Formats: sequence, C-alpha cells, structure tokens
Amino acid sequence: MSDMTSTADAPRSPGRPRSVRADEAIIEATLDLLAEGSTIEALSIEAIAARAGVGKATIYRRWPGKDALLLDALRRLKGVLPDPAGHSVRDDLVLLVGAVGHNIDPRAAKIMPCLVPEVNRSPDHFQLYQNIIEPRRKLMREVLQRGVASGELRADLDIELTMALLTGPMLIQRMLRWHPELDGRVLPERVVDTVLEGVRAR
Amino acid sequence: MSDMTSTADAPRSPGRPRSVRADEAIIEATLDLLAEGSTIEALSIEAIAARAGVGKATIYRRWPGKDALLLDALRRLKGVLPDPAGHSVRDDLVLLVGAVGHNIDPRAAKIMPCLVPEVNRSPDHFQLYQNIIEPRRKLMREVLQRGVASGELRADLDIELTMALLTGPMLIQRMLRWHPELDGRVLPERVVDTVLEGVRAR
Repeated sequence: MSDMTSTADAPRSPGRPRSVRADEAIIEATLDLLAEGSTIEALSIEAIAARAGVGKATIYRRWPGKDALLLDALRRLKGVLPDPAGHSVRDDLVLLVGAVGHNIDPRAAKIMPCLVPEVNRSPDHFQLYQNIIEPRRKLMREVLQRGVASGELRADLDIELTMALLTGPMLIQRMLRWHPELDGRVLPERVVDTVLEGVRAR
Repeated sequence: MSDMTSTADAPRSPGRPRSVRADEAIIEATLDLLAEGSTIEALSIEAIAARAGVGKATIYRRWPGKDALLLDALRRLKGVLPDPAGHSVRDDLVLLVGAVGHNIDPRAAKIMPCLVPEVNRSPDHFQLYQNIIEPRRKLMREVLQRGVASGELRADLDIELTMALLTGPMLIQRMLRWHPELDGRVLPERVVDTVLEGVRAR
C-alpha cells in the first residue's frame, strides 16, 4: 500500500480510475488495521490514511467521518448480498441462512467477533452494527413475508422471531464455535428444515 | 479488598473460615479485573493477588494455574445451574432457554461478550469456554433425550442441532442485541414453542 501516493501522482492508467483505486486502498487499509487487532475506538483516520498511503483530506473528501467509512468497509467485508431465486421459500431460506456468518474474506473471522464487545459498549457502534446487518435481515424478512402471503408459512408467524431462530444457530456456531460437534454438519439445510417442521412428534 | 491481608492476619472470626474468605476474594478480584476490561491473556496471577490482597502462593495453593481459576470464576459468574422440574419437556426447555445468556451478576454483561474474540484466537480459551458452558448444555441434552424417549419429541431428533436452535436466538439477542425489536418480547416461551411446532402452515 505504501506506493499508493506515487500511483496517485502518476498519469492515469488505462485501468480503473485513480479515485476508485484510492477508495479501495482506504477500504483495504481500514480492514487490514481491524484484522490486525485495532479496536474501532482506537482506529483513527490518521492511521488509515498512513496505511493507505493517502492524505487525510482524501479520506474526508469521500466519507464524512470514521463511522461512515467503517460502515462501507464492513459491508464490503461481508461481501455481496445473496440473491434469492424467489421460487421456493425453503430454498431461499437455505441460501440466506447459509450466508449468515459466512464470509469469503478471511479478515472477517478476525474482525466480526471482535465487534461484539464494542457493540455492547457503545450506542454508536451498536447503530453501526445494525446498519451493517439490516440489508441482510431485510432480505430474510421479505422471503418470510412471501411465505406467509403464499400460505406456505403459518399466518400468525412472528417474522422477527423466526429470523432470530434461523440466524442465531448459524451465528453462534460460525462466530463462536459454540459446539465443536456441529462443525462438520450441513447446517443451513438442517436449520431451515427443523425450523419449518418443528421438533414435536406428530 | 485491600483490607484482606489484615483480615487474614486477624484471629479467626466466628463467621466463615478464613480460607473461604480468601477464595472469595480471589474469585471476586478475577471477575472485577475482567469486568474492568482486562483480557484473559493480559490477566496475571500477580494482578489478581494484588487486587485480592493475598500472596501469589495463596492462589497457587488453591488453583494449579490461571485457567483453572478462570474456569471457577466464570462458572461462578454464570450462577447456579437451573434445576428443571422434570414433568413437562416444554416447561423444562423454557426454564433452560430462559437461563441462556441471563446472568444476575452485572459483571457478566461486560465479561462474556469480551470472551468471543479471545475464544476465537486461542485453542486454550476455546477449551475454557467449552468447559464453562458444557454443564448447561448437558442439562438441555438430557431434557431433549427424555422428550425423545417419552415420544413427545420426534424419534429422529438431531439433539445437538436442536440445542443450537434453542440457544442461538437467546444468545445473539442477549449477548449481541442482534435485533432491537426483539428485546421486549417474552422470548424463552416463544422460542421453545416455535421450535416445537415449526413455522410451516399445516
């Protein structure tokens, strides 16, 4: 990253425009610093600028402050939103549940669990976390609402609670490794089918 | 706590024996230091001894090392194990699910979320966390096994997965405040009933 300044000073290459490259260097620097153990609180625009090889003004031209930059960086870290096919409620839920806590970027495994204490400590960080996860929650909410409308799911379904039932087991397992025995199983399908069918004998 | 040394030097009072008071001072010092933000890694026997007003030798006479002391302290923090009545599988599960992430000691809300990154970082801390939670997991496993044996629950029940389904939603809500809207609801009953009955329309 340290050659970013000289790159920015060089004539524009035929590739991506210079501003996009600076954006990416800033996002990458933010994620690198968090993955190396910096807390959100300790992370400074100065440190990010130094790591990205840009000036602080370059960052402030793009983001109003640290929280806005963190939101972009952490959403990027979580990858593109899943895209449910919209045919089967069950299959769409399996897709969305499979994406819970599943991050292709290896830095996510270091960064996301470390957010837990910070989210608990600060209302601002709590709001940041809510802003990061809400787009994914919205996708799941829409699939469940579709299931209720189509008659596949119970008419009196508590949609928000059902989202927690589908998300919680994956999150504690992938983020906390709550139970070593569960690691090897095909969890998303099993979670969805068990929540759909229930565990009571019939 | 700073008067612990003089208390230990004083003639034995008619209350609890001196060694019990020292035990408690050591446990309390450990929990206080963790609640004030010390990481497990940074926590030292020296610091605990200083805070408890005892010598290091007093700690080593009782615990072989830091991990054994931490296990005792963190189990104490989580309070006494719930005691299911054994009549109704549903009611026993509501009791156990209600105890998930529910800690009477206010230090728990500060300490437990902070363990997440540490559990992910170190195999020793992962084992410590497993040792803390396994007695509670065992209680839930036994209730579910009883339900399968009595025919109340499906004969082909995946017991370990069902434990994650019951525990996950409570844990993400109480530890992470995953979804602000869920806070005010009577969650344990709803979680248990929804997992028992399923969400598919019948």
